[in-house]
Amino acid sequence: MAENFDKHILKNGMVLLGEPMEAVESVAFGLMLPAGAAMLPEGCCGAGNVIADWIFRGAGDKNSRELGDALDGLGLHRAGSISSSHITIGAALEASNLAQALDLYADIILEPRLEEDQFELARQLAIDGVYALEDEPRHKVMLKLREQFYPPPLGRSTIGSIDELKALTAQISRGIIKSNFNLSQTIFAVAGKYDFDAICQQMENGNWLNGNWLNNYQSPLTSYHSAKGGSRYAHINNDSAQVHIGLMTETVKPTDEDYYDARMAVSVLSGGMSARLFTEVREKRGLCYAVGAQYHTLKDAAGIMCYAGTTPEKAQETLDCIIGEFNRLSEEIAEEEISRAKVGLKSSLILQSESSSSRAGAIGSDYYMLGRVRSLDEIKGKIEQTSVDSVLNFLRDNKFKDFTVVTIGPKEIRVT
Amino acid sequence: MAENFDKHILKNGMVLLGEPMEAVESVAFGLMLPAGAAMLPEGCCGAGNVIADWIFRGAGDKNSRELGDALDGLGLHRAGSISSSHITIGAALEASNLAQALDLYADIILEPRLEEDQFELARQLAIDGVYALEDEPRHKVMLKLREQFYPPPLGRSTIGSIDELKALTAQISRGIIKSNFNLSQTIFAVAGKYDFDAICQQMENGNWLNGNWLNNYQSPLTSYHSAKGGSRYAHINNDSAQVHIGLMTETVKPTDEDYYDARMAVSVLSGGMSARLFTEVREKRGLCYAVGAQYHTLKDAAGIMCYAGTTPEKAQETLDCIIGEFNRLSEEIAEEEISRAKVGLKSSLILQSESSSSRAGAIGSDYYMLGRVRSLDEIKGKIEQTSVDSVLNFLRDNKFKDFTVVTIGPKEIRVT
Repeated sequence: MAENFDKHILKNGMVLLGEPMEAVESVAFGLMLPAGAAMLPEGCCGAGNVIADWIFRGAGDKNSRELGDALDGLGLHRAGSISSSHITIGAALEASNLAQALDLYADIILEPRLEEDQFELARQLAIDGVYALEDEPRHKVMLKLREQFYPPPLGRSTIGSIDELKALTAQISRGIIKSNFNLSQTIFAVAGKYDFDAICQQMENGNWLNGNWLNNYQSPLTSYHSAKGGSRYAHINNDSAQVHIGLMTETVKPTDEDYYDARMAVSVLSGGMSARLFTEVREKRGLCYAVGAQYHTLKDAAGIMCYAGTTPEKAQETLDCIIGEFNRLSEEIAEEEISRAKVGLKSSLILQSESSSSRAGAIGSDYYMLGRVRSLDEIKGKIEQTSVDSVLNFLRDNKFKDFTVVTIGPKEIRVT
Repeated sequence: MAENFDKHILKNGMVLLGEPMEAVESVAFGLMLPAGAAMLPEGCCGAGNVIADWIFRGAGDKNSRELGDALDGLGLHRAGSISSSHITIGAALEASNLAQALDLYADIILEPRLEEDQFELARQLAIDGVYALEDEPRHKVMLKLREQFYPPPLGRSTIGSIDELKALTAQISRGIIKSNFNLSQTIFAVAGKYDFDAICQQMENGNWLNGNWLNNYQSPLTSYHSAKGGSRYAHINNDSAQVHIGLMTETVKPTDEDYYDARMAVSVLSGGMSARLFTEVREKRGLCYAVGAQYHTLKDAAGIMCYAGTTPEKAQETLDCIIGEFNRLSEEIAEEEISRAKVGLKSSLILQSESSSSRAGAIGSDYYMLGRVRSLDEIKGKIEQTSVDSVLNFLRDNKFKDFTVVTIGPKEIRVT
């Protein structure tokens, strides 16, 4: 699992990262554009979704149809996502088609056609997507949880707000693209089979250095309100047979020296079928059909995020039991729990190391969060260094408190 | 992408299959037990979910907690699924832990403890899982679609029926395990880094040959009613903002000589952003935020299955437009559509060839469906042999008709 990484910074400040993987025929890449939900001006919630659709509706010398044909003609498996910080667009594909794909993506980012009628279609689909959330309460509760937990605008919905989408115009969206598709803040990450020199040369010679909107970028995210203390609870009434519970509590960021202790703590809580939440909440008491916690981080704040799906009758006991397990964690952890958590995390690293898409995502995210890429060996070493004592010390110095809770269901529950 | 496969048949008839993958450190395996939803006795719909949970609640010399600890101690990423034909249990993990994992799975399959109190917990969670479907209409519409499309019992719900789960007892479930966990009909598939001789030896020497329930197996699936002709429509009323549309029509099975033409036809319809459904239904007309079709097959029947999510106002036009595209397909296909479909399918093969979990699943499924494993080169060659003419001839000889349609939403639509 020893890795080496490629890195090159274009004259415009755009960062190119690569992780070569032997014995694969595929390559995966992602372009992280600083236009995530929290990076947009006030009143444009959901614009990222419209933009991520609109820019694919014709670019350079190709109309929408021709562009789609060209992308499919390269056998691209497109992947895209919108986070608090970035719109990420990318794909996995056969390595020999990478150069042609990057030319198309240069057009999509630098010369999108942005036609008015295509805007209306993209906006309407984004609005429909917000309505569709009503039929996905499990997804909705976690979106609402992040909104409640992170200080604004960090937790802003990545799906959008109906009112703000209705007010969004093509002109405003063009303005966002112009200011936020800033290459000096953009990260390109590639993993798998590729020729890094060829990629650098292609990008140095291509359109990437001719963008109109370089170096004129002012992030709207110069400050945000820091988190309020105390528990917060929000309930969304829904006349359904289920209750969806989202719960989140603050923890350290990846830049913190205790970061790996926090990751171990989450693993002891929810790293597998022997982890505390699964055994205590689901296996022994049968309180819910689904329960799990995971670490979630933005650049400026992080938390442990938990979901449980249960029935109205069991909702209160489920929440009490989950909070009880969070609180109980700092009392005692067995040696075996730590060693299982270590095995589990290391096993995840091995599986991740074999997927070009996972690695492209991970190196891009590392660079954004930490300013550098961690090797899997480094992560493995840091995990190895944790111990029952280090995790317990961390938990005692960083008591879980101020739980943010969101429920969707037929009635409220109490957060104590 | 040239592969070789390993194959060995145990004395009890159980088939062991392997696909070695160079340069990976992981291994993935699946055990396909002939206890899928259609293989169960009448009146036990959902028993597969209870059983797949129950057998992990203690096995051999380990109680539920100890077994969970042991599995997590090996860093297993468990994967399980229930289909019409099989309960599949398996995992991906670090290659060096495979032998220990297989010993645990021998206990789980051959010596599950099947305790009464654990049964009640497993059954209740399965019931909660059926209720939870109410909040996942997208999933629910596709389950209902299969139920409507396939002749009984092939389309039986893999999630379960509340009434039948309530009537299910530990005794009935033990009986199902005894008759359906039949090793002579079980397929073990492994892919990644492994030593096939060592696996065979371990299984020859282990418990696998001592199962109590060998060779006494009578599949309840001796016959099924063949599909009725004509369109069928089912509507589930739901007071929501969305309409979920599922649509399915018969096509050839993987054993048919026209199989690859059928796959190409589905790709032209829905293989990417340039495919017909996406461009006609979503991009041009903005009718729905999600639309896609895929090939779906059981051993005895196959179909093309389509999903669309839309608003009540657009639901009728969406369905009409989708059926229009299905019907229009046999009129004309452009050379470029076929070449894009070929590139797309071959690109998928390359990505699949790099994932141990995908390959373990694929070789097991091939063996069950075809009685042999296809190499990726064989599939690639067959795709290459298709042409505009072969696909059009196939479509003209096998006109899409008798659409089965299911909707979930606030009002019915017309199926013409």
